[in-house]
Amino acid sequence: MIRIAISGCNGHMGRVVEEICLADPEISIVAGFDLLGNGDHDFPVYSSPAELKDGADVVIDFSSPAALKGLLELARTRRIPLVLATTGYSAEQLAAVDEAARSAPIFRSGNMSLGINLLLELVKRAAAVLGGDYDVEIVERHHHRKVDAPSGTALMLADAAAEALPYRPEYVYDRQSVRKPRDPREIGISSVRGGTIVGDHEVIFAGRDEVIELRHSAQSREVFASGAVRAAKFLAGVRSPGIYSMADLVAATKPL
Amino acid sequence: MIRIAISGCNGHMGRVVEEICLADPEISIVAGFDLLGNGDHDFPVYSSPAELKDGADVVIDFSSPAALKGLLELARTRRIPLVLATTGYSAEQLAAVDEAARSAPIFRSGNMSLGINLLLELVKRAAAVLGGDYDVEIVERHHHRKVDAPSGTALMLADAAAEALPYRPEYVYDRQSVRKPRDPREIGISSVRGGTIVGDHEVIFAGRDEVIELRHSAQSREVFASGAVRAAKFLAGVRSPGIYSMADLVAATKPL
Amino acid sequence: MIRIAISGCNGHMGRVVEEICLADPEISIVAGFDLLGNGDHDFPVYSSPAELKDGADVVIDFSSPAALKGLLELARTRRIPLVLATTGYSAEQLAAVDEAARSAPIFRSGNMSLGINLLLELVKRAAAVLGGDYDVEIVERHHHRKVDAPSGTALMLADAAAEALPYRPEYVYDRQSVRKPRDPREIGISSVRGGTIVGDHEVIFAGRDEVIELRHSAQSREVFASGAVRAAKFLAGVRSPGIYSMADLVAATKPL
Amino acid sequence: MIRIAISGCNGHMGRVVEEICLADPEISIVAGFDLLGNGDHDFPVYSSPAELKDGADVVIDFSSPAALKGLLELARTRRIPLVLATTGYSAEQLAAVDEAARSAPIFRSGNMSLGINLLLELVKRAAAVLGGDYDVEIVERHHHRKVDAPSGTALMLADAAAEALPYRPEYVYDRQSVRKPRDPREIGISSVRGGTIVGDHEVIFAGRDEVIELRHSAQSREVFASGAVRAAKFLAGVRSPGIYSMADLVAATKPL
Repeated sequence: MIRIAISGCNGHMGRVVEEICLADPEISIVAGFDLLGNGDHDFPVYSSPAELKDGADVVIDFSSPAALKGLLELARTRRIPLVLATTGYSAEQLAAVDEAARSAPIFRSGNMSLGINLLLELVKRAAAVLGGDYDVEIVERHHHRKVDAPSGTALMLADAAAEALPYRPEYVYDRQSVRKPRDPREIGISSVRGGTIVGDHEVIFAGRDEVIELRHSAQSREVFASGAVRAAKFLAGVRSPGIYSMADLVAATKPL
Repeated sequence: MIRIAISGCNGHMGRVVEEICLADPEISIVAGFDLLGNGDHDFPVYSSPAELKDGADVVIDFSSPAALKGLLELARTRRIPLVLATTGYSAEQLAAVDEAARSAPIFRSGNMSLGINLLLELVKRAAAVLGGDYDVEIVERHHHRKVDAPSGTALMLADAAAEALPYRPEYVYDRQSVRKPRDPREIGISSVRGGTIVGDHEVIFAGRDEVIELRHSAQSREVFASGAVRAAKFLAGVRSPGIYSMADLVAATKPL
Repeated sequence: MIRIAISGCNGHMGRVVEEICLADPEISIVAGFDLLGNGDHDFPVYSSPAELKDGADVVIDFSSPAALKGLLELARTRRIPLVLATTGYSAEQLAAVDEAARSAPIFRSGNMSLGINLLLELVKRAAAVLGGDYDVEIVERHHHRKVDAPSGTALMLADAAAEALPYRPEYVYDRQSVRKPRDPREIGISSVRGGTIVGDHEVIFAGRDEVIELRHSAQSREVFASGAVRAAKFLAGVRSPGIYSMADLVAATKPL
Repeated sequence: MIRIAISGCNGHMGRVVEEICLADPEISIVAGFDLLGNGDHDFPVYSSPAELKDGADVVIDFSSPAALKGLLELARTRRIPLVLATTGYSAEQLAAVDEAARSAPIFRSGNMSLGINLLLELVKRAAAVLGGDYDVEIVERHHHRKVDAPSGTALMLADAAAEALPYRPEYVYDRQSVRKPRDPREIGISSVRGGTIVGDHEVIFAGRDEVIELRHSAQSREVFASGAVRAAKFLAGVRSPGIYSMADLVAATKPL
């Protein structure tokens, strides 16, 4: 039984984490942290991590950068592992995270979705095997309010392919402005924007007479809550202090 | 029973047309035209249309612009309908086609695939119904040797949507170079290039919490042969001289 | 300006309707109905429709069958049009709806999504044009808790195709148990179940060397709220009492 | 430079192999074998393998089971590696292949497509990482003449997932006949049949709020020719006699 504390337990993501933990027979929730008081939970809610009485195996944090200091104190003084799923830390805060990671395991990731992190590994593998003989293209789709293109995740996927390809690819975002056959050393990246699409990513390997497509679709941001709970279970089995990420979690599944 | 003559019967597309006609119980092949002689067919092959003896209900042409003159002579003097599936005519030749179409029905189309022409109609309808509330995006995929982007068919699809939308859309080919939310009056057009992909086109209508996708995939250029045979059957039922296209064929199917 | 009242304004769907109306410059919300009191809205909330003071152009209802009686009273005595997006009415209640529809327009639909209802029309059109030459197959995907298969919407799509096909198709759900080529007069229907997929439907027309796919993906049940607001705007322009559905709304968009 | 001989060089697949080899700067074609004589190639064509003069690094065979005896003789007496892409061998012939593989490397595979074999490996990896938390479903599509369902490749993909899952899954082919939520220990396998679709396979991992799809599309049977040439290059680098397969080729690409 893994004893979990939820930081930010009254927020939307905190409540999704709670729901996932309640449905998991290997987890018990021992405490919550939230400035806004109890909020109708079946576990004690403290206004700060310092008040935690009986300890926890892992703390999952979906609150705000303001809560970081108290959480790192738990890691440093009581060696409690942390899953930090909050984003927007300052450089100074990130340095403090690294320092606290000398005392306890701390989990942070650019993208907390298990599926995307698996996809990154599969893309690397496909690029290594299909080598220079298959053209690599990426198509991502997001809602119409997103201001940047391509998505950060699309670039992570391109970088994953690039790492394994036998050449250094050039990223190409616009084919309309040129009239020439595709250069084999390109990775084309297309961005579709429309409606309320949460986030789709597709990596295409197109060869002679066959196409392999590796695709991920996110239905809602709640996917990050599942990823954080998975990270907590992973961290509960880790002995050594240090910084861990989703890539470590995926890699920890033994190859067949 | 529709009596068909195949112009260019020894070429690859001519042979595909033959195969499709042989499998169709409503069609009999009465003759072929080809400079290269008989070529092992079950019907007489003439080196020029002028030699055709007993007439035909329709001639399907997949040969070359050089054969046009003899074919138009059939239309003009014997009022035999023509399906011209050959491309690359000069402006002068196109004028001759228009002139011959005063004597007999002549079928020509920018894209001879029935599926693409149906898709054009469905896209117009979807754009009319979903009006300004759904974002329109197009993704096309072709082989890596294609020099132009987007494909002519992608632009035809964008134009079909534009015709029915309540605003005049701007076509956008590159989102990487700007950092701003999508303008509702855009149509994004993305071009994927890779391997030997024959031609995929996808029109996306993305609204609040739902996405409608209308998609066409061509497996080989042989799809144009099926379209040409379909056009021949359509033309056999047409009385009036004139120019006909795939849009007419699709529209001729009565609305429900 | 269309004046809308929201019945069930404190429920989840009522709040989504409110959000959509607030973002629409052609709509003003004039009242809400909810047993649970005001609930922090910028419009008056009454505990029953009878209390509505200044009238409304349309009422959108996402509450429960228990609220029906009061709503029908509005239709009967004050001729206010209703969009009934609540489900689970008894046969007796449906008869009362029909009776009230003699006094005012009332909108009800098996599926309140605009996209699905457009898809039904496009599928009919595609089946009419592609006739007996293309094989029709349907693949639907839903979450793993759904107990019935295929989905009701998949059957609506198959029926829409069947209506326009030149033959009476047989629906086939299992190909594993037989060893024979596909009969052209079949419609294959496959059901995929997994995770939390809200609802994807794909209708495939597969012909010689080309495939046309018409696809709908729902991201959340909130899509029904957009559909209900669209229905309200449609109803506000309707003069005659009677029962209206999403098929009427789609058909009301003039053909090109 | 790898010196390749093509057995069955005048057949359709033999000619595709020739075309691929001619475009590959690392390969030279040193001979062909075909009963039908020279057939207009730029290399000598012998009517039997025994006539091969100067040796070859690898022989690629796309002929017929009747040619096996002569090919195995090359392996046994001259230790020339063989890629056997012909299918339909008898049990007796397979035993002779195994015996000859004691003298030289021999490559055979259930499916000669590199993409499908990569997909098998990726599916295993995804099943291992996503474990019991994601539902696994497979959808395959083939032309309407295919008599068996599901395809052999779909079953290979299901078996690959099963090998890595933490439970022994039950394969489910028909959901229409039952009314109950999905059992987590199922793998659903759906077969779509239509038109001339060459072969599409999609493996779906559906979890909470995310879906991962791994997909392969074959455009023509020519994909097996590319696979065979890739196999020949692999075999040219292998020292030890024995039976090799596409799984060995994929696995030989070093993990990152």
